[in-house]
Amino acid sequence: MDSKRITELLGIDCAIIQAPMAGGITTPELVSEVSNAGGLGMIAAGSLAPGDLASLIHETKQKTENNFGVNLFVPREFEVTDSDIGNTLRLLRPAYDAFGLEQAPVTPAAPEEIREKFDRQLDVVIEEQVPAVSFIFGVPEPADISRLKSSGIVTLATATTAAEAADIGAAGLDAVILQGAEAGGHRGTYLGRSEDSLTGLMALIPESVKRVDIPVIAAGGIMTGREIVSAGVLGAEGVQMGTAFLAAFESGAHPLHKQILTESEDVPAVLTKLFTGRQARAVKNRFITEFGMFEDDMTAYPVQRSLTRPFQEASRNTGSPDYAMLLAGQGRQQARYMPAAELVRTLVSEVREIGYDI
Amino acid sequence: MDSKRITELLGIDCAIIQAPMAGGITTPELVSEVSNAGGLGMIAAGSLAPGDLASLIHETKQKTENNFGVNLFVPREFEVTDSDIGNTLRLLRPAYDAFGLEQAPVTPAAPEEIREKFDRQLDVVIEEQVPAVSFIFGVPEPADISRLKSSGIVTLATATTAAEAADIGAAGLDAVILQGAEAGGHRGTYLGRSEDSLTGLMALIPESVKRVDIPVIAAGGIMTGREIVSAGVLGAEGVQMGTAFLAAFESGAHPLHKQILTESEDVPAVLTKLFTGRQARAVKNRFITEFGMFEDDMTAYPVQRSLTRPFQEASRNTGSPDYAMLLAGQGRQQARYMPAAELVRTLVSEVREIGYDI
Repeated sequence: MDSKRITELLGIDCAIIQAPMAGGITTPELVSEVSNAGGLGMIAAGSLAPGDLASLIHETKQKTENNFGVNLFVPREFEVTDSDIGNTLRLLRPAYDAFGLEQAPVTPAAPEEIREKFDRQLDVVIEEQVPAVSFIFGVPEPADISRLKSSGIVTLATATTAAEAADIGAAGLDAVILQGAEAGGHRGTYLGRSEDSLTGLMALIPESVKRVDIPVIAAGGIMTGREIVSAGVLGAEGVQMGTAFLAAFESGAHPLHKQILTESEDVPAVLTKLFTGRQARAVKNRFITEFGMFEDDMTAYPVQRSLTRPFQEASRNTGSPDYAMLLAGQGRQQARYMPAAELVRTLVSEVREIGYDI
Repeated sequence: MDSKRITELLGIDCAIIQAPMAGGITTPELVSEVSNAGGLGMIAAGSLAPGDLASLIHETKQKTENNFGVNLFVPREFEVTDSDIGNTLRLLRPAYDAFGLEQAPVTPAAPEEIREKFDRQLDVVIEEQVPAVSFIFGVPEPADISRLKSSGIVTLATATTAAEAADIGAAGLDAVILQGAEAGGHRGTYLGRSEDSLTGLMALIPESVKRVDIPVIAAGGIMTGREIVSAGVLGAEGVQMGTAFLAAFESGAHPLHKQILTESEDVPAVLTKLFTGRQARAVKNRFITEFGMFEDDMTAYPVQRSLTRPFQEASRNTGSPDYAMLLAGQGRQQARYMPAAELVRTLVSEVREIGYDI
């Protein structure tokens, strides 16, 4: 893999980025150990309060002197009425009942609050001089990009189509993360419909490299050195790996979540909007199967996330995968349970065994 | 690419298989030119009458002395009532009206007729000693596999999941074609739901090679030497390419169909059941957009194909892509217009330039 531009840009030894995964997975231990091993650890900060983000950055800095990054969600408009919430809660009632949970009212954040939170998150990453900041769900406004760049922060954004890659290139970001359809977690689509933006890396990488001059980083289904080399041959200059690091010892993923990665091999990881209101890839379970028909009748992101959280957590805590959100990419069966730094070193040596470098 | 098992099995020079594409695309000229150049040309015979298949085989034999293959559809049960047909025709009325077409009644073939046709197709390939026969939509019955194998015919079948690959391996076929989610045309899924069987090659190849001993051939989004090498690194021992050969001079695809491959680059090739009743990947057009909401209310394969054929053809013949079935894979933008033999030679030299062989 011709990773020189990425390693120089990010100031790292090997072009392996640990994908930001929300929900407490990217602990300071995970992030710092990836960076200590020469990759780039990433703090998933999309939904974090600015103060909590600052704390995580401090903790991470105590554990590594190497570069690491933070991922933020670009604010998006959404419309959810009280009646939508009421209707969704009615539809979700059987899932609450399964754990004897009471339904509580939810008040969606106002668009200004979300924008304000994002601005404060930007303040934090600038104040803390975080080496790299990546975005998902869009491209920040030109003024935000300028602020980050003039602070010496490397900027990256996520594309799910070649058109989005071209858009990110035109916006002046430093690199683009190509999220193949194989990827676990939220789809980052922000131009067009998410359902129409499910391109496998085999097609997405070659289509995108034709349309941007900045380096592209491949994400989705990349689990071993073999997939890294494969992405490199297609034109990627780096990789971002989520599910592979979800299984790492230091990841904060629930044990049930880690464990399921290598279980029930014929259960697919499918796309669903049920958990959060945004299309995301998760291991198919009872909730997805039984509530799938209502997918388009429920609320939007991020309100849906609040409405489903109580039984997601209850399910995990009772050791049942039935109602839990088990985000995972299509390569999950290749997950390996080991320390994050060992995983980084293993990947680098696997790449070298095939006769390439990273 | 470690293609020795495939080239020996199929008696070819390079492990490049031209995918069988129905609807008159795989002309004897296309099939023979691929084989003459050292690859394996394939006649798409799924819907062909046995006599027509025999004629195509004769014509192909006149144009090449090299090995070639035939693809057949494994018969599948389906249920379509007169009321379903009536309802679908009502829903499709605006598409007929767009071209001033009258609606005609359609009588679905009986299951016995379909099985009978398949048996006669098998008779033809055995009688003609076709070197290789591939299947889609399932695995033939053990007796059929035995008949083919005892006639010295190499057998292949199509998998869309690692579970299907394992099933094909267990059934005793000689090789498995892995159809990645990137692929154009019909999804070959036969175990489980097609919607749950959309795995990108980046994940599908590594997952499948763990579960079979027979060689795997990768299909979906493979357009240049780069994708071939990439698939090889992931564990494939050969490739099958459809969209790339659809653009070849000798392909019988309608000029409109060939032309659209490299046009409107931001229009996705999406999955739809609208054209045939089976999920297939096609360039998104007016028909898919406007009738998408009725997708689950229409008839099953192959009846839906008959019901939509009149306006598909009218659309093509009037030079409009609006109602045409423009099957294509996600790599379509990389299609190259050249003679098929030149494409095979170009691919081989691209693979060699990267330092691999095929």
